[in-house]
Amino acid sequence: MHIHNYPSKLLENAVDEFAKLPGIGRKTALRLVLHLLKQPTNEVESFSDALKELKQNVKYCKECMNISDTEICSICANPRRDSSLLCIVENIKDVMSLESTNQYNGLYFVLGGLINPMNGIGPADLNIEGLINKIAQGSVKEVIMALSATMEGDTTIFYLYKKIKNFDIEITAIARGVAIGDDLEYTDEITLGRALLNRTKLEASFAT
Amino acid sequence: MHIHNYPSKLLENAVDEFAKLPGIGRKTALRLVLHLLKQPTNEVESFSDALKELKQNVKYCKECMNISDTEICSICANPRRDSSLLCIVENIKDVMSLESTNQYNGLYFVLGGLINPMNGIGPADLNIEGLINKIAQGSVKEVIMALSATMEGDTTIFYLYKKIKNFDIEITAIARGVAIGDDLEYTDEITLGRALLNRTKLEASFAT
Repeated sequence: MHIHNYPSKLLENAVDEFAKLPGIGRKTALRLVLHLLKQPTNEVESFSDALKELKQNVKYCKECMNISDTEICSICANPRRDSSLLCIVENIKDVMSLESTNQYNGLYFVLGGLINPMNGIGPADLNIEGLINKIAQGSVKEVIMALSATMEGDTTIFYLYKKIKNFDIEITAIARGVAIGDDLEYTDEITLGRALLNRTKLEASFAT
Repeated sequence: MHIHNYPSKLLENAVDEFAKLPGIGRKTALRLVLHLLKQPTNEVESFSDALKELKQNVKYCKECMNISDTEICSICANPRRDSSLLCIVENIKDVMSLESTNQYNGLYFVLGGLINPMNGIGPADLNIEGLINKIAQGSVKEVIMALSATMEGDTTIFYLYKKIKNFDIEITAIARGVAIGDDLEYTDEITLGRALLNRTKLEASFAT
């Protein structure tokens, strides 16, 4: 049903804001706003404040570019993590997914996206310089590419491989237990854990 | 996938808040929060402010209890609306739905819920006193019950009928073109418009 007769401009504004979110239509937005309106004022304020505070105070770890409340995130700052292993991921959610497999004790590096010429995302839009600086420091012995098994993931892996192949490191990729075409974030943790354990060297397939 | 390794407390707080909304799970909440995080600061602030301002400044029309930015809402304040017709609805969304049928030129009254003993909602939780005061003013000649065709809707209609049957008014209900068991808010506007036109007198079926 098409709904446009908002009885209040304040209501319409709040619905407009919710409807900007991905996957939220105007009907769902209205339902969510009317739900919030029924909650006590302090609950609505805590919702509102949580978003504002996140945006205002969010930090990104200087080492791995993951979201962090501190300069260096808790993974990078943990001396029991193996700093010779560096797992390259697209985004923060992928770090959380891989952590939840309990199969990995190394460090991460968050690229912030994948190369996607169709959407105008090129290498310059990703944290590739930070990645190369990180590898150049010398403690990393193996780089694990944990990117989605999509064309964008493959393109990014190939680009990164060419950029870092001259470092004295092993370059691997998580095993393609992940079905081709599937996004990493929708993969279950068993498959993801196995794919991490079965990671393969890239040299063989890319050697020219 | 179970995700619990939030890299940031600020992130987790924001996800917690979104996940409190009806129909939003933790994965969706994380996706929405990460989307917001990618937006410019002023967009996140306008999202956050829209909710806070709605909650702080929302008014309810003194005449019909609909949301309004003014003391009297634009429908009640409109001299071209027929003030002899009063349509009783459960909530604000139902006013919007009925307005979008373009079949109704009378006034509304928002009950604020339906009698639902299973959820502990009794007559005292609804705006019934306001409704009776409104009818007692004498300008209303017909009350139209536009409530969901559910047990709660039927219970509420029966309760209200007993409360107002002694006023010198006609009491009608929108036609049950609405399939039994369906919620009003999911009804298409053609069906809803027809149900409104085919409203039936209640006296016959309830007379004892």
